[in-house]
Amino acid sequence: MPLLTLLTDFGTHDYYVAAVKGTLLRLAPEARIVEISQDVAPGDVEGAAFLLAAAAPAFPEGTVHLAVVDPGVGSSRRRLVLAARGQLFVAPDNGLLTHLLGEGPVRSVERTDLDLAAPGETFHGRDRFAPVAAALARGLDPAALGPEAEEPVRLPLPLPRRAAGGGEGRVAHVDRFGNLVTDLPSAWLPAGRPFELACGPTLRVTRRATCYAEIPAGEPAVLPRSRGTQGVSLRDAPLAGISGCGRGAAVRLRVR
Amino acid sequence: MPLLTLLTDFGTHDYYVAAVKGTLLRLAPEARIVEISQDVAPGDVEGAAFLLAAAAPAFPEGTVHLAVVDPGVGSSRRRLVLAARGQLFVAPDNGLLTHLLGEGPVRSVERTDLDLAAPGETFHGRDRFAPVAAALARGLDPAALGPEAEEPVRLPLPLPRRAAGGGEGRVAHVDRFGNLVTDLPSAWLPAGRPFELACGPTLRVTRRATCYAEIPAGEPAVLPRSRGTQGVSLRDAPLAGISGCGRGAAVRLRVR
Amino acid sequence: MPLLTLLTDFGTHDYYVAAVKGTLLRLAPEARIVEISQDVAPGDVEGAAFLLAAAAPAFPEGTVHLAVVDPGVGSSRRRLVLAARGQLFVAPDNGLLTHLLGEGPVRSVERTDLDLAAPGETFHGRDRFAPVAAALARGLDPAALGPEAEEPVRLPLPLPRRAAGGGEGRVAHVDRFGNLVTDLPSAWLPAGRPFELACGPTLRVTRRATCYAEIPAGEPAVLPRSRGTQGVSLRDAPLAGISGCGRGAAVRLRVR
Repeated sequence: MPLLTLLTDFGTHDYYVAAVKGTLLRLAPEARIVEISQDVAPGDVEGAAFLLAAAAPAFPEGTVHLAVVDPGVGSSRRRLVLAARGQLFVAPDNGLLTHLLGEGPVRSVERTDLDLAAPGETFHGRDRFAPVAAALARGLDPAALGPEAEEPVRLPLPLPRRAAGGGEGRVAHVDRFGNLVTDLPSAWLPAGRPFELACGPTLRVTRRATCYAEIPAGEPAVLPRSRGTQGVSLRDAPLAGISGCGRGAAVRLRVR
Repeated sequence: MPLLTLLTDFGTHDYYVAAVKGTLLRLAPEARIVEISQDVAPGDVEGAAFLLAAAAPAFPEGTVHLAVVDPGVGSSRRRLVLAARGQLFVAPDNGLLTHLLGEGPVRSVERTDLDLAAPGETFHGRDRFAPVAAALARGLDPAALGPEAEEPVRLPLPLPRRAAGGGEGRVAHVDRFGNLVTDLPSAWLPAGRPFELACGPTLRVTRRATCYAEIPAGEPAVLPRSRGTQGVSLRDAPLAGISGCGRGAAVRLRVR
Repeated sequence: MPLLTLLTDFGTHDYYVAAVKGTLLRLAPEARIVEISQDVAPGDVEGAAFLLAAAAPAFPEGTVHLAVVDPGVGSSRRRLVLAARGQLFVAPDNGLLTHLLGEGPVRSVERTDLDLAAPGETFHGRDRFAPVAAALARGLDPAALGPEAEEPVRLPLPLPRRAAGGGEGRVAHVDRFGNLVTDLPSAWLPAGRPFELACGPTLRVTRRATCYAEIPAGEPAVLPRSRGTQGVSLRDAPLAGISGCGRGAAVRLRVR
């Protein structure tokens, strides 16, 4: 029985996560649930899309990922199932799968016979998504759920651009430690070359490091992140708050 | 082996939840633990009672629910086991089972031989409740734990009252999204009838919706919640904070 | 297959915890993961050391504990495996195992063939610690990981001192409820003897209780904690915030 992961913006103060987990385990009793995060900011589809794409590669083939950040719950937005990397991803059609689109076929779930009896229009995570994920975990072929989805929603995120002697991108994520995670590939900053990375009105970084311990106290440094892009960090202090650079802030890299 | 759920006010910064989980798995090694929430506000028995009753229906028959929000730990308050809906509920006798009372027999746990060796008086969740839940998960008959409990504690929560052309109730819960979840049954607001729902000094709602996407920006609307009662919501904004209406606030519904 | 516990300062808003859990389950598919806490304050090795030592005794023999609070990630700090109490503990060599040192042999993990391919220097939790924990969970002998570690790092925490008619110690932990957990053994306060416990400029406690319900409203009392040391608490209110006494504050006990 494959793993079933769960990613939502439901938080941990309500019964919503428990209701989804209970439903999954009622419908797929052998499933093993692994929580990715329930602490996505309410309605933050972009943040959830990043977390899902970042977490998925660690999981084994066969994993079924259920991701529900769904401000459009109850509207006509579709439910999608994406097959990629030997895994399945179930999510609303609102951009949550943006970083995975193109990696495999996407289907629109049109079957409603899997839904819980008398589903409401405010809690599709429990009533209409969990049954789909449970059925997939039990081995249902995604092709049995509906036709290929035309033009799934893609978040309008700008891609990093190669520019003379560097590149331009953005802060893709700010983590708990206040590290800035950019979308600039680490390869765009060759070893040994002087550079300046700029973000926001005041942050200018000319130092690089390979780990936090190498960063001099009080000085920001660029260091390669675990997913292949450049990060910017202070040692033992949250750079994001101190620099005022948050998610979406423009980042310019000049290599000399 | 049934599922064992866990609901506490222990938070996630301490070792308390881990100590309970470790004890459960030491005593019932085959059990599968599902966390409902550890983020009940400290000592908030009413909030825990709501979450427990809201989450339980999603779980399969045979599930054993352990709920420990227990400001009276170490005092003479009893330990209860309730059998209802094919599930078992273990909790202190302080009102935590309020919404489930009447659905099945309640027993007072008088056996102490299941307790951990040298139990203390500050952590019954680990020392005296977890062993009971683990024994039930392993198949112990609740009748072996003690006699029927007379007059288990019931929280003095007013019930919603039917009134001419509507009803009067209260906000039963505020969720992470700032939605107000009332205790007024959805059936008290027939389709197509004009109405006014009032809560607090300023919140007056005359609009209804079936899902968040239907709510006009900036205008509150009534919409049916997933558990059969009326809710009041803004679209993409936390109504509770904006309206100043919190849990317990009176709600008046007038249908014309 | 033993239990695998996880304790980190990664928080629940990022993908880091999920990436570690996914890696553990990819490499040890039969493992069962139990989360101790992911909410250690960023870089708070002392707090993590307390939680790990406090949580571990509840778990069965054979449990493998993975603890990653690792500001020195990527530097030359060693990776350790400690065998104690029939359990294994995997952690960076930065003091996280302080309370467990001396209870069993500690090895330095020198093998790198278990590491994920192309490990980075910012996420050893996933790339270099999780594979070790997974291998141990699958039965690898710790002796196969490396030689005995000389002088593992020990946090410079003062030990409580017996003093005439009492003792001197410190607040070892403040829990979610605002209880002060001291390091003074409960046995240092014999039953029936008058005493004064002092902490900070204003907190003076002369009352004792065996449970919270016995504490008079508004008056602090000493009561024995579940791990064998003295605590100080208010009833239904967070003493730490009210008294201004936090972790590390000196505590003086005088028994008359």
